[in-house]
Amino acid sequence: MYSLNVREHFMIAHSFRGEIFGPAQRLHGATYVVDATFRRAELDADGLVVDIGRAGEVLRSILGALNYRNLDDEPAFSGENTTTEYLARAIHDRIVRAARAGDLGEGARGLSSLCVTLHESHVAWASYEAGLEE
Amino acid sequence: MYSLNVREHFMIAHSFRGEIFGPAQRLHGATYVVDATFRRAELDADGLVVDIGRAGEVLRSILGALNYRNLDDEPAFSGENTTTEYLARAIHDRIVRAARAGDLGEGARGLSSLCVTLHESHVAWASYEAGLEE
Amino acid sequence: MYSLNVREHFMIAHSFRGEIFGPAQRLHGATYVVDATFRRAELDADGLVVDIGRAGEVLRSILGALNYRNLDDEPAFSGENTTTEYLARAIHDRIVRAARAGDLGEGARGLSSLCVTLHESHVAWASYEAGLEE
Amino acid sequence: MYSLNVREHFMIAHSFRGEIFGPAQRLHGATYVVDATFRRAELDADGLVVDIGRAGEVLRSILGALNYRNLDDEPAFSGENTTTEYLARAIHDRIVRAARAGDLGEGARGLSSLCVTLHESHVAWASYEAGLEE
Amino acid sequence: MYSLNVREHFMIAHSFRGEIFGPAQRLHGATYVVDATFRRAELDADGLVVDIGRAGEVLRSILGALNYRNLDDEPAFSGENTTTEYLARAIHDRIVRAARAGDLGEGARGLSSLCVTLHESHVAWASYEAGLEE
Amino acid sequence: MYSLNVREHFMIAHSFRGEIFGPAQRLHGATYVVDATFRRAELDADGLVVDIGRAGEVLRSILGALNYRNLDDEPAFSGENTTTEYLARAIHDRIVRAARAGDLGEGARGLSSLCVTLHESHVAWASYEAGLEE
Repeated sequence: MYSLNVREHFMIAHSFRGEIFGPAQRLHGATYVVDATFRRAELDADGLVVDIGRAGEVLRSILGALNYRNLDDEPAFSGENTTTEYLARAIHDRIVRAARAGDLGEGARGLSSLCVTLHESHVAWASYEAGLEE
Repeated sequence: MYSLNVREHFMIAHSFRGEIFGPAQRLHGATYVVDATFRRAELDADGLVVDIGRAGEVLRSILGALNYRNLDDEPAFSGENTTTEYLARAIHDRIVRAARAGDLGEGARGLSSLCVTLHESHVAWASYEAGLEE
Repeated sequence: MYSLNVREHFMIAHSFRGEIFGPAQRLHGATYVVDATFRRAELDADGLVVDIGRAGEVLRSILGALNYRNLDDEPAFSGENTTTEYLARAIHDRIVRAARAGDLGEGARGLSSLCVTLHESHVAWASYEAGLEE
Repeated sequence: MYSLNVREHFMIAHSFRGEIFGPAQRLHGATYVVDATFRRAELDADGLVVDIGRAGEVLRSILGALNYRNLDDEPAFSGENTTTEYLARAIHDRIVRAARAGDLGEGARGLSSLCVTLHESHVAWASYEAGLEE
Repeated sequence: MYSLNVREHFMIAHSFRGEIFGPAQRLHGATYVVDATFRRAELDADGLVVDIGRAGEVLRSILGALNYRNLDDEPAFSGENTTTEYLARAIHDRIVRAARAGDLGEGARGLSSLCVTLHESHVAWASYEAGLEE
Repeated sequence: MYSLNVREHFMIAHSFRGEIFGPAQRLHGATYVVDATFRRAELDADGLVVDIGRAGEVLRSILGALNYRNLDDEPAFSGENTTTEYLARAIHDRIVRAARAGDLGEGARGLSSLCVTLHESHVAWASYEAGLEE
């Protein structure tokens, strides 16, 4: 299995609902350094997992729509606790949608899975991985 | 599959028995930077893999019992070579025991596996991963 | 010159005023991974720059008062743009105050300077360094 | 499953053929920081995944044959785009060959798989993982 | 003293002349992860060392002119060994020129010095630091 | 001012004397990842701060004499608390001695200072920097 990873970051405000979150129930924020790891069994005709230029553009575009925002005000996350693991899944789903729309190029149809990891500090991170098959 | 990782470290002395270890047969030591990575298929009702606060406390408590010690003198490791990979398994088993005792909270019953990684330097690490199902 | 560094982090929301900040004028947030680097010309009688346990406690205490907060609501920062470089100075000043109050122990009186660095992502950081002499 | 990782690096020149590579069609180069991650279900009699000393020697030897070279001139890669993912596979195959030749010692016969990761910058990496069974 | 750092990377081929370089006399290459660290005594009116957006653009523009190239063919480096330390100075000088041309904005006139660091691997880096005063 | 850095590591056991050290008074150990940073005002005739190959060899040789040892048994450190900052100085002095003995080559006579940093974990490090002039 081959993997290829690109990294970008975004910075947001949010708060959590539920006693389990303690002081994180207050409005606070985070920098998330995001790794998008694409996997496939065999390389495409150019010797690639995915066009790294397009992969970076797709990731930047998706994170750009979240960057410098208060997630508590984003309709897409209404009623949700935007935990690190929840956001990993949300960004995963958006990249999958972009791949299916052809934004990663034709070669991306051979991708088998995608793992999205959000590093929230030097000591904590969360990720979501799932298959890309339609 | 979702993953959540917390990081802590501990510092120990030990020695190894067996020619394969060369100079590491002498009493020496290591800093181990430990990653505990919890995995589960679906998030709990709070949108979490595991309560990160509790996960950190459990990891600190388990590493605290090893920190600033000479592992050659620890009854738990008597007769064992406390290699990095051996210690990854030992710490894995202790976290699993804590999870089963409820120390990670009720939500932790949904965890499917745990990976424990010990970084012994900037160029070497070892890990142990296994299912958490009882 | 000797230096000793301890690292902690905190997570906040804030916004900036001024066109130069572009989209960062919106309410957003950041994780700051903080390095506090203490310097002195000669080690103390115990062979230390500073008691690393106390240094960590002081840093955790100062960052704890900011952690999980919206800095736009903090009276201490009223009317200020809490940029990374501004916050590096603010945290620097609080550590200096703690050192002068004796929170780092008697040995800390020999410290000559302090550098505080805030890492806001994998590609950007800011710091403030100044002498500790009274 | 146990894993053990060793890290080394090498520095090469190369160019790519195909419009998808844009400016990387020009002769350029890269530093690759390489992680070789060995996996097995049970530790050997010494409590090891693999002899870390031998693993490091094998990795250094294989990378040494590529280091400070222009890959466009290497017969082994003739007609190939030596992308990061392609090189991860090529190095993987060379380590597997060395393992089968006994260069990792007898214990290495219990290895179940190998993952080779090439970090090409602070924001991009690629890897190849496959079983080691003969 | 305040500092602000931005990070980017570029990938080049080159070779060295002189026996001291051993196998690096052959055509090879490197990824350089570049840190540009701007320093000044007092923050500007916006609470900044320098506009981080402009600083990133200037760095990207300067590295873009070197990226994906064979430095042996660049007239600017004709007859020079483009060692890591030499390149740190060359990039430093180009940033200083851009600052003096106003590319970093008016506020940049208050900058006192600049340090440029090139990381060539996980174990080696070089830097050049000098004052920015005209 | 130019700087060039090389990185290596060593692993030791030791204990500390004095109540201030708390549990670290017990026999324990550490991995130290060591950065040796050489500085000089002007590059030598080859465009170098120092021959990086020789610098690495000198550092490996000095750390090799400490590696896999119990520092409590080393005559060189008799009666000393081998704290991270103390060891940074001890290694600094050994590199300076090697430089003066010519182990870094003739070019090394132009070095102006040396900083030695010991990273003891992902959250703590200490360093010692001093001039190299005879």
